[in-house]
Amino acid sequence: MPIDILVSEVGPRDGLQSVASIMPTAAKKTWIEAAAAAGVREVEVGSFVPAKLLPQLADTGEIVAHARTIEGLTVAVLVPNARGAEAAIAAGAHKITLPLSVSETHSLRNLRRSRAQVIEEAAAIARMIAALPTASRPHFEGSLSTVFGCTLEGVIPVAQILPLAEALMAAGCDEIGLSDTTGYADPASVRRMIRQVRGAVGANAVTGIHLHNTRGLGLANALAAIEEGLTTLDSSLGGLGGCPFAPGASGNIVTEDLVFMLEAMGLRTGIDLDALVATREIVRSALPGEQLYGFLAEAGLPLGFHPSPSATFRHQEVA
Amino acid sequence: MPIDILVSEVGPRDGLQSVASIMPTAAKKTWIEAAAAAGVREVEVGSFVPAKLLPQLADTGEIVAHARTIEGLTVAVLVPNARGAEAAIAAGAHKITLPLSVSETHSLRNLRRSRAQVIEEAAAIARMIAALPTASRPHFEGSLSTVFGCTLEGVIPVAQILPLAEALMAAGCDEIGLSDTTGYADPASVRRMIRQVRGAVGANAVTGIHLHNTRGLGLANALAAIEEGLTTLDSSLGGLGGCPFAPGASGNIVTEDLVFMLEAMGLRTGIDLDALVATREIVRSALPGEQLYGFLAEAGLPLGFHPSPSATFRHQEVA
Repeated sequence: MPIDILVSEVGPRDGLQSVASIMPTAAKKTWIEAAAAAGVREVEVGSFVPAKLLPQLADTGEIVAHARTIEGLTVAVLVPNARGAEAAIAAGAHKITLPLSVSETHSLRNLRRSRAQVIEEAAAIARMIAALPTASRPHFEGSLSTVFGCTLEGVIPVAQILPLAEALMAAGCDEIGLSDTTGYADPASVRRMIRQVRGAVGANAVTGIHLHNTRGLGLANALAAIEEGLTTLDSSLGGLGGCPFAPGASGNIVTEDLVFMLEAMGLRTGIDLDALVATREIVRSALPGEQLYGFLAEAGLPLGFHPSPSATFRHQEVA
Repeated sequence: MPIDILVSEVGPRDGLQSVASIMPTAAKKTWIEAAAAAGVREVEVGSFVPAKLLPQLADTGEIVAHARTIEGLTVAVLVPNARGAEAAIAAGAHKITLPLSVSETHSLRNLRRSRAQVIEEAAAIARMIAALPTASRPHFEGSLSTVFGCTLEGVIPVAQILPLAEALMAAGCDEIGLSDTTGYADPASVRRMIRQVRGAVGANAVTGIHLHNTRGLGLANALAAIEEGLTTLDSSLGGLGGCPFAPGASGNIVTEDLVFMLEAMGLRTGIDLDALVATREIVRSALPGEQLYGFLAEAGLPLGFHPSPSATFRHQEVA
């Protein structure tokens, strides 16, 4: 079945890296299988970072290998540098995302590298990928983190952002992602940033966005993004890893609520909502005591709910 | 200062009627004063219903009289029928809202009247208002409740809804409100309903919407509504009265989060966010043990936040 919007489940990476407890490897596999069975077509399954930094994700290699056996699933991972990308390629990831913080302060503190150094890493990764046989080359995304503002520097001028997007593309990225790391975005800034970055690197090179719900605007921002024409949205089952009421917490937008919004609007995600909501139990039992969020799972579907006819959306709802 | 969007605070009515505890009259007055001082220009201060049904709102007459002394504040009330409207007029309310459930089942259970009987009440209220001197006539809104779906009947066909909107206008209402009583709306249905009801009664007769956040889409729906050109949005401080995680609870959209979204987008509300957030303490101390919601109050404003330049919104963000 064709879909209109690709919902990329980042809970196994962004969610799990933000909780103190470590989910057992077997539970991760079960979760990813169940997500895929519910219709999720892309999962960011982990991150290739040193295990001492993020022990929660130390089994990423094994998880990638397992997730690759699930038919039709795009297996995505995050890497902080070329060494991580080497491991990701060895494991067989389909998609590799390298974050580049547009804030120099945040970049130095978070990745211990300047923005220029991260762009050098991007170039090294692109060379590594180019050396592979065509059929086994992963998709390579450079993701602009803190692009809607940084907790250390505030809003970063767009005049600094656009050259970074251009540099990532010049380094060999296939695509530029936008990441509201801090939950600073609003619907107007989402629209503006998409237009500006697309203006710099081309519309085809900007298709996805990673939004947080820190200030409650996550789904409104998602709406703005899809109305601008983006087609990939990151989200996390149960908003895992983000206590939205704790400053600084991750607060990913909640997959179940996002899928409900999209399906209610007649945008096909390929995801079965009941099956998706049921996967919360896997996470809940594997991470006892960890809080899961989300409105839909608590309120349930509207009486008689069925997704709207899909083909009508683009003409009726988007100007 | 001119504003772009009128945020109508309904906490003293919709919030308080949904909590078990009764807020002391003095605290209500303090809250409404503080809201107005923060820049809130319209407050729904209560409801003229029998005190035995809603003891939380038994002091509405006194509250209206007090709120009228606050310069520049529009004092709104809800009434279930002509008898309530008589009391509202006697108290001096500036705006009277009569809800009409578009679901016959819900109308009979909630108001114990058929939809046809409610339209007769509307006509009686309109006659009462017309008999007043011009300068003292309140604004009269007929509000279509359950217009995005009913927990008893599901989605009500638009072919039933539009004649009800027309009948309310024919009965003498000044305006038709749209109310997502059940939290069933999504951004596409919000856009569709606004266009359809405006098509039936004229764009000028549909300016406001009352949204709930039961399924997490409240702010996304608000975004859709303002992009369609609506200019009045109801919301409740701290989401008061609605545990969004409890099915059937009110779950009004949170005033602080709504104002943050609007101001961040460059839409002027006239409301000072810091002062607004500070009013939570009034409610908290007057209703000990009652849960307040909202993301902004917990996460705080983004570093260096200032509202966007306002005049740019309509051209840049709305097609």
